[in-house]
Amino acid sequence: MITQTSEYALRVVAYLATVDNQIARRSDIAESVQVSVAYLTKVLRDLEAAGIVQVKRGPNGGYSLLKSPDALSVYDVVSAVEQLQRIQKCPLGIVDHQKLCPLHDSLDHAAALVEQHFKETTIAELLPKRNSAKGCKFPRQS
Amino acid sequence: MITQTSEYALRVVAYLATVDNQIARRSDIAESVQVSVAYLTKVLRDLEAAGIVQVKRGPNGGYSLLKSPDALSVYDVVSAVEQLQRIQKCPLGIVDHQKLCPLHDSLDHAAALVEQHFKETTIAELLPKRNSAKGCKFPRQS
Repeated sequence: MITQTSEYALRVVAYLATVDNQIARRSDIAESVQVSVAYLTKVLRDLEAAGIVQVKRGPNGGYSLLKSPDALSVYDVVSAVEQLQRIQKCPLGIVDHQKLCPLHDSLDHAAALVEQHFKETTIAELLPKRNSAKGCKFPRQS
Repeated sequence: MITQTSEYALRVVAYLATVDNQIARRSDIAESVQVSVAYLTKVLRDLEAAGIVQVKRGPNGGYSLLKSPDALSVYDVVSAVEQLQRIQKCPLGIVDHQKLCPLHDSLDHAAALVEQHFKETTIAELLPKRNSAKGCKFPRQS
């Protein structure tokens, strides 16, 4: 439904959201989100270009979030690394089609449901609740 | 969101639904749904294995739907050619995780929305309305 790159981008942003205003080293991010440094570098570049993370260069440098997790949606992060598929025009390329057929209208509706969910979900909502029951507590095991 | 194979499978089934109880030749299906005969053969084999279409072999042979379009969902057709992605367990493979973290729970919720929409939509609903306003009327231009 989303690409592996989007999955990594979301993990990266969720991880950065847990370190508040601190700067995270690339190697620490890579270890936490389980991605190679080479792949992570590409993801971080896209997130930086979208204005979601900022980089501080140098020996004590690293990455931090530019926006509050409350003000950042899943849609914002996913859109930074891929274009979510919507069906704007007939995939069969038939001339003179002014609107989608029921088949493609239905497929586009499914895509719209995903898009809406991603727009309504903030990164803050993706962070593990403190003192929650035992379970997956990515990005931080507390 | 769905694979190209699923898109073709839906086009094939929608096309067959418009020819009622007649048998459609493979070349006619290929032309209508804009797919190569080689690719179509793979899709038809999967649909046959799933009990959605039946084949009549021989010089006057071809393909027809085994189920009424009213009794066939988009989910049935898509599931015949691909496995829709749901997140059953932590993609990070962290040991001792008993439930998904909020991030993956949210992504799985988006997948569930798509799955539900596909289960609730029948092939009959994907067919163009007769006498509808000018627009895309795949699979039949009336």
